[in-house]
Order: sequence, then C-alpha cells, then structure tokens
Amino acid sequence: MSAPTPLPPTATTFLTPYLPHPTGGHYPFTTLTYAVSLDSHLSLSPGTQTHLSGPLSKSLTHHLRTHHAALLIGLTTALSDDPGLNSRIPGTPLSAQPTPIILDPRFRWTPTATTRVIRTAASGAGKPPYVLVRADAPEHADKTAVIEGVGGRVFRVPVPPGGAERWEWDVLLRFIRRECGVESVMVEGGGEVVNALLEARNQKLVDSVVVTVAPVYLGRGGVNVSPLGRIGSEGRRVPAARFRDVAWCVLGDDVVMAARPDVEI
Amino acid sequence: MSAPTPLPPTATTFLTPYLPHPTGGHYPFTTLTYAVSLDSHLSLSPGTQTHLSGPLSKSLTHHLRTHHAALLIGLTTALSDDPGLNSRIPGTPLSAQPTPIILDPRFRWTPTATTRVIRTAASGAGKPPYVLVRADAPEHADKTAVIEGVGGRVFRVPVPPGGAERWEWDVLLRFIRRECGVESVMVEGGGEVVNALLEARNQKLVDSVVVTVAPVYLGRGGVNVSPLGRIGSEGRRVPAARFRDVAWCVLGDDVVMAARPDVEI
Repeated sequence: MSAPTPLPPTATTFLTPYLPHPTGGHYPFTTLTYAVSLDSHLSLSPGTQTHLSGPLSKSLTHHLRTHHAALLIGLTTALSDDPGLNSRIPGTPLSAQPTPIILDPRFRWTPTATTRVIRTAASGAGKPPYVLVRADAPEHADKTAVIEGVGGRVFRVPVPPGGAERWEWDVLLRFIRRECGVESVMVEGGGEVVNALLEARNQKLVDSVVVTVAPVYLGRGGVNVSPLGRIGSEGRRVPAARFRDVAWCVLGDDVVMAARPDVEI
Repeated sequence: MSAPTPLPPTATTFLTPYLPHPTGGHYPFTTLTYAVSLDSHLSLSPGTQTHLSGPLSKSLTHHLRTHHAALLIGLTTALSDDPGLNSRIPGTPLSAQPTPIILDPRFRWTPTATTRVIRTAASGAGKPPYVLVRADAPEHADKTAVIEGVGGRVFRVPVPPGGAERWEWDVLLRFIRRECGVESVMVEGGGEVVNALLEARNQKLVDSVVVTVAPVYLGRGGVNVSPLGRIGSEGRRVPAARFRDVAWCVLGDDVVMAARPDVEI
C-alpha cells in the first residue's frame, strides 16, 4: 500500500467544520462517509470492490480516519474488500488510528493471521478490531482467539425484545458509546449500513455526511445508495433525506460533499 | 416566471469548452443535460416534476439553452412539466432561442392554446416547437393545427425496417440534423431519453454532458438515471459510462459536472 497523495490545504479546511467534537450525550459523534458513482452505486455488484475515488479523495478518507476514534463497516464490506481500516498517512501515531469495528450480527467473519485488519493490528500500523455480534450469535472460540490474539475484542450486543432481524441503529450506537467507549465513529459502508443510516428514522443519529462522487456510471445492477422512499403528511412522496450546511470540494476528477442531515424536529 | 439569477463569470467560463461548435458531420452537436438528486433521481415518481436544482444551476440551464439551436425532451416530460422550453435570460433575442423538439412517437401530446410551449411561441418569447412522431403514428389534424398555428411543425420520422418499439438514436439524430436542419441540440430529459443516450452504443452520439447534482436523496422509487449495466470482454461487469475532460463547478448548494463521454474506439 503506497502512502496517500498529500491533500491541498483547501481540502482539509473544507472538512474542518464537519469533524467530530465531544457530543456529551449517549451517542458517539457519527460521520457517514462513502464514495459513489454518478448513479449512486458503491460497487458494480454485491460482494465486489469497485475502485471509484481518485487519489485525492482517497487521501481525504485517510485524513478523516485520523479524526475518529473508530471506523465501522458491515460484514459484506469486510469480506469483499479485506480492508486495512487504518489511516495510511505517513507518521500517523497508533494513538491517532481509529479502532476498526466490524458489524457482524451472526459472527460469520472468519479472520486469520493473513486477514488485513489482523495483520495491520499485529504490525502496529493500526488498532486491533472490535467485532460486534448479536447476543444470540454462535460462539466461535477459534475466531475469538484470532481477534483477541492481536488485542481485539468481540462484543455481544443485546437483542431487543422481539429480536428483529435488522440492527436497531439507535441501540447499536448507544452500545458503541457506552460499552465500547467510542466517542466518534466514521461509518464507511457498505450499502446496507449506509442506506439504513440515511433512513428518515435514523438521520438524527448522523452528525456529518461526507460523500465522494466519481464521474462514472456503474449502471443498473450495482450496489445502490438510495434510502427508502418517504411519504409526507399529505400522502405524497417527499425527499427521503435533505441536508443543511452543504459544502462541496472538487478533488481531481471527483467531487466531495460535506453536510449535515436536515432532521425535522 | 421570474428572470433567472445572474450567473457568476466563473460558471460561464467553466461551461465554455463544452458549448456546441460546428461538427461538419451527419449529426447535430448533442449536449445531454439534466439535474439529479444524490441518488441519481430526476423526480420523486414518474410523471411528476420535482424541483431539484437551485437558482444558480437553473440559470446555467437558461445560459446553455441560448447556445443551442434546439432543445429536446421526451413526451413524458412535456406532459408532466408543461415546460416553456425557452431561455428566460432577459434580453435574449428570439434568434438566440432554441427550437423546442418534443419526441412523441405515437403523437399523444395534445397541445392547446394554454400549453406553455404554445403560449411561449405565440407571445414571441420562444421559437415554435417541432414534434417528432413515428411515420406510422396516427394523423391528428386538430393537434397539427395548434402546432402549425404558432409556426411549429410535425415531422414524421421513418420507422426502421422491423419497426422496433424504441427510437434508434442514431437514426433520430441524423434526422434532426438533415430534415429539421438543427446543428446543435440540448437534450434535457426525461429518464427514458437520458438513460438511452447514456447506453454504451449511444455514447458516441453525445458530445457534452452537463449534470447538476442537488444535495438531497429522493429515495427508492423515483425516476432513476442509471444506464443499462455493461459486461466487459472478460465476462465481468464494467462501468456503463466513463467520462473525460471532467470539470466540476459549485453553484450554491448544487454542483455541476461538465464532461465528454469517454467512448472506446
């Protein structure tokens, strides 16, 4: 992995107002960030990685990572991308690296010594990962040993009464703050995670949104970012998510939007 | 209709390299332009108009219109938006107005004296419209009278052997150049038209693409811009459309991309 391209000062200045600050509440400061094509696809097909963002917008992601206590992804992304989940800006001390968090309700992730996030932690280039599984997920002594072997942890998240199949993000983020001790988290994908946090009922949990748009159409059939449609008080469709404090930054051939969800009170 | 907000000089300079120039060939210079949400939707649902772009990006559209000989839309857009299809920049002489072209294969459009494009032509604020129907579409003396009454024309486009249901854009654009005498055309939508021109086989017909992205998610179920998925020579999915000479311009809360399709020769 080569070092990220240095960012122009305009790019870091652009991001500053959207960086985490102490929230004082029951939730971590939550940044939702991802790169999409013009047709709002994260990748060409489920379970595959598509390189969308150029070198400068990738650097912006590494910059953002050093400003968060943790970096969260879903299981599908962990499996398809095998990501390092650290910041590769040269000279980043371990203390400024984010803790990788992998959301894995059924504990299906099977890390080994060659899994990148495990190697990264073992080499000291990144923090050891946290794996969040449901309280009723199977025990896996072997997987737990690999994770704990590099200093990582498996957390069992209580299943709400009724035991819905999907994560309740409200519950999950409070758990991350209280049980994992994480004060700021950067959510990087994939599609299921991003779409869930963009849903009307979850927008209040998101403090900043940073979206890179790459000048390409992946075409129908890709992994799409588009929240559930929303019906307004008059019974008609209304926009699913609006933003305030919108700023754009052109980075090479890409453009990056930073904004805050415009949550109706 | 109020006059468009004046554009900053940076915005017009940004567009200059993408404006029509004489092509000398059998096709008009073709600009594909539209405004989408972050999830690449043109509107909340088929047949409805959604106001996405802010005042400055709307002004950019009016500026673009004065640089094209014609402005083309599909029937669904004509019906749902009832657009004026002229440039509302104050002081635009009629000679600098584009000729509205409505693509209406089955001649379903029913213009009356109160239809906006008819009123606009009658008042001298815009050119009279051309309606393109298939050669085998029904005759409608009443509709034709309304169109010709303001100086417009109905053109019958020959149906290719086999009589496919969808337009062949190659045939259509050559017709527009040869029979309508149009040297540059700005294609403004809707979804069916845009997606067709972004398809791999039609990209070579497009000279410039100007896309406005508004900071909002309309949500699943909207009218989506996303071309057909494309399979590469190795049997795997590849991006459906790439661009070269990419430039972005931030206009208020929106961002505008200007680019040229990167057609493989």
